[in-house]
Amino acid sequence: MNPARLEVTHGLGCYPIVVGSGLLSRPGLFSELLPASNLLVVSHPSIQTLWGDRLKAGLGDRHVHYHSVPEGEQHKTLASLEGIFDAAVSAGLNRDCAFVALGGGVVGDITGFAAACYQRGVSFLQVPTTLLAQVDSSVGGKTAVDHPGGKNLIGAFHQPVGVVADTDTLGTLPDRELRAGLAEVIKYGLIMDADFLDWLEAHLEDLLDRSPEALQHAILTSCRHKAAIVGRDERESGERALLNLGHTFGHAIETGGGYGEWLHGEAVAVGMVMAAELSARLGWLAPSELGRLRELLSRAGLPRDPPRLGAARMLELMALDKKVLGGRIRLVLLRRIGQATCTADYPDDALRGLLEDLTGGRG
Amino acid sequence: MNPARLEVTHGLGCYPIVVGSGLLSRPGLFSELLPASNLLVVSHPSIQTLWGDRLKAGLGDRHVHYHSVPEGEQHKTLASLEGIFDAAVSAGLNRDCAFVALGGGVVGDITGFAAACYQRGVSFLQVPTTLLAQVDSSVGGKTAVDHPGGKNLIGAFHQPVGVVADTDTLGTLPDRELRAGLAEVIKYGLIMDADFLDWLEAHLEDLLDRSPEALQHAILTSCRHKAAIVGRDERESGERALLNLGHTFGHAIETGGGYGEWLHGEAVAVGMVMAAELSARLGWLAPSELGRLRELLSRAGLPRDPPRLGAARMLELMALDKKVLGGRIRLVLLRRIGQATCTADYPDDALRGLLEDLTGGRG
Repeated sequence: MNPARLEVTHGLGCYPIVVGSGLLSRPGLFSELLPASNLLVVSHPSIQTLWGDRLKAGLGDRHVHYHSVPEGEQHKTLASLEGIFDAAVSAGLNRDCAFVALGGGVVGDITGFAAACYQRGVSFLQVPTTLLAQVDSSVGGKTAVDHPGGKNLIGAFHQPVGVVADTDTLGTLPDRELRAGLAEVIKYGLIMDADFLDWLEAHLEDLLDRSPEALQHAILTSCRHKAAIVGRDERESGERALLNLGHTFGHAIETGGGYGEWLHGEAVAVGMVMAAELSARLGWLAPSELGRLRELLSRAGLPRDPPRLGAARMLELMALDKKVLGGRIRLVLLRRIGQATCTADYPDDALRGLLEDLTGGRG
Repeated sequence: MNPARLEVTHGLGCYPIVVGSGLLSRPGLFSELLPASNLLVVSHPSIQTLWGDRLKAGLGDRHVHYHSVPEGEQHKTLASLEGIFDAAVSAGLNRDCAFVALGGGVVGDITGFAAACYQRGVSFLQVPTTLLAQVDSSVGGKTAVDHPGGKNLIGAFHQPVGVVADTDTLGTLPDRELRAGLAEVIKYGLIMDADFLDWLEAHLEDLLDRSPEALQHAILTSCRHKAAIVGRDERESGERALLNLGHTFGHAIETGGGYGEWLHGEAVAVGMVMAAELSARLGWLAPSELGRLRELLSRAGLPRDPPRLGAARMLELMALDKKVLGGRIRLVLLRRIGQATCTADYPDDALRGLLEDLTGGRG
């Protein structure tokens, strides 16, 4: 299987996403993407154990420093960020260094944000090792840490110099994380590509079996769609909000359910069902299409029902969403499979009724 | 005295700097600069006491939340930053809010960096109340906090939506801080405007007497020069480095002497003398011009001699400078009064000899 390549264009330039097997130790790949000779590789201990040696081979004879952050969304904090700064300063890294994120979305988000801030911005290379990170965090330049008051409240836009998505790393990914990643893949079908949703329905078992070819196609298609949207709306003023299908509900579930209880993709899966259900109640989405979504998520082993947080708590958590404008929660809803819209134009009663029905009363 | 206005153009747009007397409570000024209706004003307790009421009058009937950060460079930390995030989250502020910095450079730097990161970027208005902040921090979009390993190591480029420099606020500024601010004003004469240095020599007493007209001219001229340089080099790849005349030495002095011991402007004054002395030793700057600089700084009541940190410690501290490239310390040196250059092309022995002579031996 040959590596596939996608060029992502953004406001300040462009960078490649390379997707394939055996990339971590592929000769010449990193020297093309990364001119810096002083590197700080940030990872989790377990990921470093699994893939550190291969990456070291790929990085060749540069000065490579390593730093570990603890695993789990609960460590996506300013404290972890500070640990990266301390490591970079201890290593004497200057503005001409680069930070490399080897790991999932948490590592990518923290490391990218650290790279955005260290010396007011150093180069940043993504080496995502989860499906979620490969399809979602690799495009868009969003980096962040969480605040007790909400997810991703503190962050920056900082574009990577490149993304290396090695499908081999998905071979050791726990099943639950693979499935959570598929939620975001399915999202791209829902918001903008009905044909891709058909393809996903036909190839779901290949993906669950981790077929490199199927994974490469799913990753590339997802990144291509995300890149197209982000390219048209880098600062998230309009269309980019569509990528948040399921996320306003999902973030509330993640926050209310306690970070670490829910995987991001699991919360997004439930959030997509809630958005689809509301869309159906408003008469936009056919009930059969809602059923199709629930069926696909079920086959992917993903949850479809929210925790019993209660409507009041859900609304309170959703009000922290970054899409709130003038005090009103904007939601991404579905017109049909393959077409989404971001709107504040829904009856409050419909949202409240949905939350009461699905999350357990007025709470 | 009428307010004067300077438009600063940057990569993403432009914003006005308004300089004059009575601006804080001037009707209509803030509503023009700041469309946001939810504001977080960040200040020091003492500044809030002195100027908070006037600013409140100027801000009119918006929702204004207040947050205090402790005074002093030693509080320009990630911990203070976190306090601002906590305040913003507690106040329920969303992406459509604005942060207002009321205070000196420390308040401006922290608040600007917080605005750069909160919700991945919210609007930011500067209301600088020190001469240093009015002439230096108002232009360029640089924001940062310090790290134990060095000044301004963690930060972002984030442009304000406007700057309101009310010369009335300089009326309550301690003498020592006014003098420290003059060091940065003198810097603009040194690096790019020999006529302005003549004017400063002629009007130094007016400035020390806080004449509003003289201050307005000095602030506007400094901001105009900085804006011209920054406009040609927003990301600090070339010419902008000239603004760092005296800063590589100065930052080392601030760090080595302990934050809080030296005011930034005092360290810069000494740093400019060191840069001028090295320039003279290299045969670039006439000894008489070095003497002229020492004389002007002396009249301004500014220090000209570095602490006895020793050459080795100075070099170690200077190596953390962001201008280091490929392991070599680049310095801003003077060709003559009014013309500076950023260069790594000096003999190592000359720098080491200078440090040994001025800072107390090999250390």
